[in-house]
Amino acid sequence: MSLLGRKNTSNAAGCSCLPSLKYPCPNKLITYSVAAGMDQVAEYLEGLSFNEDDLAYLRSLGLFSEGFLAYLKDLRFTGDVVAVREGEIVFPYEPILTVKAPMVQAQLVETAILTFVNHQTLIATKASKICEAAGGGVMEFGLRRAQGADAGIYGARAAMIGGCVGTSNVYAGKLFNVPVSGTMAHSWVMNFHSELEAFRAYARSFPDACLLLVDTYDTLHSGIPNAITVFRELRAAGHEPKGVRLDSGDLAYLSKEARRMLDEAGFENAIVCASGDLDEVSIRSLKAQGAKIDSWGVGTKLITSADLPALGGVYKLAAVFEGGKEIPKIKLSDTTEKITNPGMKEVYRLYDRKTDKAIADYITRAGEEVSSNAPLELFHPVETWKRMTVQNFRVRNLREQLVKGGKRVAPVRTLQEIASYKECEYSRFWEEYTRQDLPHIYKVDLSPALYRLKREMVERQGREE
Amino acid sequence: MSLLGRKNTSNAAGCSCLPSLKYPCPNKLITYSVAAGMDQVAEYLEGLSFNEDDLAYLRSLGLFSEGFLAYLKDLRFTGDVVAVREGEIVFPYEPILTVKAPMVQAQLVETAILTFVNHQTLIATKASKICEAAGGGVMEFGLRRAQGADAGIYGARAAMIGGCVGTSNVYAGKLFNVPVSGTMAHSWVMNFHSELEAFRAYARSFPDACLLLVDTYDTLHSGIPNAITVFRELRAAGHEPKGVRLDSGDLAYLSKEARRMLDEAGFENAIVCASGDLDEVSIRSLKAQGAKIDSWGVGTKLITSADLPALGGVYKLAAVFEGGKEIPKIKLSDTTEKITNPGMKEVYRLYDRKTDKAIADYITRAGEEVSSNAPLELFHPVETWKRMTVQNFRVRNLREQLVKGGKRVAPVRTLQEIASYKECEYSRFWEEYTRQDLPHIYKVDLSPALYRLKREMVERQGREE
Repeated sequence: MSLLGRKNTSNAAGCSCLPSLKYPCPNKLITYSVAAGMDQVAEYLEGLSFNEDDLAYLRSLGLFSEGFLAYLKDLRFTGDVVAVREGEIVFPYEPILTVKAPMVQAQLVETAILTFVNHQTLIATKASKICEAAGGGVMEFGLRRAQGADAGIYGARAAMIGGCVGTSNVYAGKLFNVPVSGTMAHSWVMNFHSELEAFRAYARSFPDACLLLVDTYDTLHSGIPNAITVFRELRAAGHEPKGVRLDSGDLAYLSKEARRMLDEAGFENAIVCASGDLDEVSIRSLKAQGAKIDSWGVGTKLITSADLPALGGVYKLAAVFEGGKEIPKIKLSDTTEKITNPGMKEVYRLYDRKTDKAIADYITRAGEEVSSNAPLELFHPVETWKRMTVQNFRVRNLREQLVKGGKRVAPVRTLQEIASYKECEYSRFWEEYTRQDLPHIYKVDLSPALYRLKREMVERQGREE
Repeated sequence: MSLLGRKNTSNAAGCSCLPSLKYPCPNKLITYSVAAGMDQVAEYLEGLSFNEDDLAYLRSLGLFSEGFLAYLKDLRFTGDVVAVREGEIVFPYEPILTVKAPMVQAQLVETAILTFVNHQTLIATKASKICEAAGGGVMEFGLRRAQGADAGIYGARAAMIGGCVGTSNVYAGKLFNVPVSGTMAHSWVMNFHSELEAFRAYARSFPDACLLLVDTYDTLHSGIPNAITVFRELRAAGHEPKGVRLDSGDLAYLSKEARRMLDEAGFENAIVCASGDLDEVSIRSLKAQGAKIDSWGVGTKLITSADLPALGGVYKLAAVFEGGKEIPKIKLSDTTEKITNPGMKEVYRLYDRKTDKAIADYITRAGEEVSSNAPLELFHPVETWKRMTVQNFRVRNLREQLVKGGKRVAPVRTLQEIASYKECEYSRFWEEYTRQDLPHIYKVDLSPALYRLKREMVERQGREE
């Protein structure tokens, strides 16, 4: 079988990159993304195998030869993966993850890798945009509207990478050791004969985590007065209340009134939490209206990335190896942006030494050296007359070895470490690049050697057709 | 602890219903939905328990008393669930699933139930709309853009319920025994020195499932001529080819040309499969342009329900039981549509005896009898002057017992059975109700007894405030 015939002679390198504007949304550009999902990729690759059950099923399809099934039986992933760290800020067209493996393996793992990286990167990016708008204090509240359990669990993880401070998903909290938080449900309040009775019962159960949902009946005339009554009782018993949550109505007006009422009652430290179909747009609008909201519970629109529910990351063949020699490959397309960058590559980020801000990313052929000792001329990869010379910069290879010979070699990092890394690296970007309205487009340029290779291959393939 | 104090005296009934227009989209109405996810709900409820690890984690949060943790340790779900069958056509505001269980249990299971039902119903509904537009032959191709592995796997299941004829998700194929199908990747073609060589290798591997991807280099000048060459070789060796797949370019034009070229070469039975960012809108447009496409591979926009990535199903307290007596509960809201229907309920569907078409759905209080022996007067639940008398009809209770005393009692159905059921029941709706442009709104009315209870409770609660 031909699939088998090639397995020992040929290696493949697949690159997963992020095309921009796969789903053009009016007034929306994909500017930056927050990479995530690499941990799940490493775990998957280390565990990849086909058990007897799987093989019996594949045999039953009548599509595969016994030789191929025998090959699958013993299959383990033996390849190498380099990838950006989770939490890294990445841009369209960058090879954020490269697999180098025997061709059969490289093709087998394509879909799983894309699923994990596309999903977690999507949600981490959306979370980053929401957290940027809120200025902090965003809780992930979306499990009930997630696209299945994994979407809720790994989505909560990705939301933390993007900047959320906690999740209502207790299972994700357990798996990834992140703060969990939540409040009562409306049904809790409705289960009692009165709202006051419901609040008192909750305060007895959670005297030090007493966040009361105040909108079940009437926020200003019932919910907040009842909450204040219970907060006074709590304080008399030696506990400080956490605050109130608004889940409906005019959040700008209600939050200002709630703040005033709580302050007048002497609960200046009680927080006002708001939830209800929030996203970065509505949060920015609420803040512009002077809403007094300390904490944001964001559900549906975060956990589904509602305005852009899929990231168009792709996995393309970059090169094959014959007798150890790299043969670069290119995928052509009538759409210029969809022409791949051929061959094995590296991605570097250049930072200004004075400000420590990122200047540009720079994609090279593998093995090229990028020195910060001399000025570096950058040029636009299509409009090549646009040029810029960079000096006094430092340079960093954006990717690390994630898997070597089928084994994970990159450190396992805690979610807190990943989130801190994201925050730190994000702060190295001028807000002109990360803002959501009409951002500057961050430069992702090619080295002259990569540019030449691409030009030559495009022109040669064009002639051959 | 109050949670514990009530557990033996009080039962709760939660209803999950589908509010309409949770996400108003211009020119889009949520008309019908295809219910799904109940199988996963039953499996979850039967398996619900907290292991030592879970309890240790919950203890570490410092929020819960030892008494409550001891209660969780022994917890099994002991309640009852009635729900519509998977594949049932359902409408906004209908209680598609009701849990009757001790209050703690009823609250604990809320999020999981909503996640499973919201997700699978969302994707089954989207699939139904896409399949309706295509008129059949839709393959689910979306795993790589799904929001995590579960979203891909259960999304593929839901897509089959909605009407898809197969999936590229081999794991879902194995789990749910559904047809799997796919084609080569572009990287397969690029791995060989020429397209013809790649096609020949594929034909050798899959002589009876030879569907060739023809757009890697140039569809009309390279891909299809090479495919025809290989198809001739296959036929000479005693195999009939499956067809070609188009994944880019002008699908209307290319499919017509592909059809003509295949026919002229004597391959009238070879199919033309199309893929690439398809959904019900683009499929309808392609068909209106006369595209010659036999099979549709639909990915991203199906598996994420891209234009509406979350279904706003909610779970609300309908009643509590004290000493066996039902005390109906209602959730008020300034938004009339968000006021819940109080108390334990049933949902009936009325069918015209002559046409066997559905006339209306009819929500009653539990225990009411709905007789088809006498004319039944229906009225609009808000604009009550809109009335209609139904005669010569049959009536069906839309829900079945799914779980009784914590054990599944509804039959486990194959995915094929569920999909057939959906197709059959769907055919009982006039297309005026299911069409996507300006549909008639299907009637979901309340019985006089339920209407009176709701009115009384709304007015009483209003006075009490």
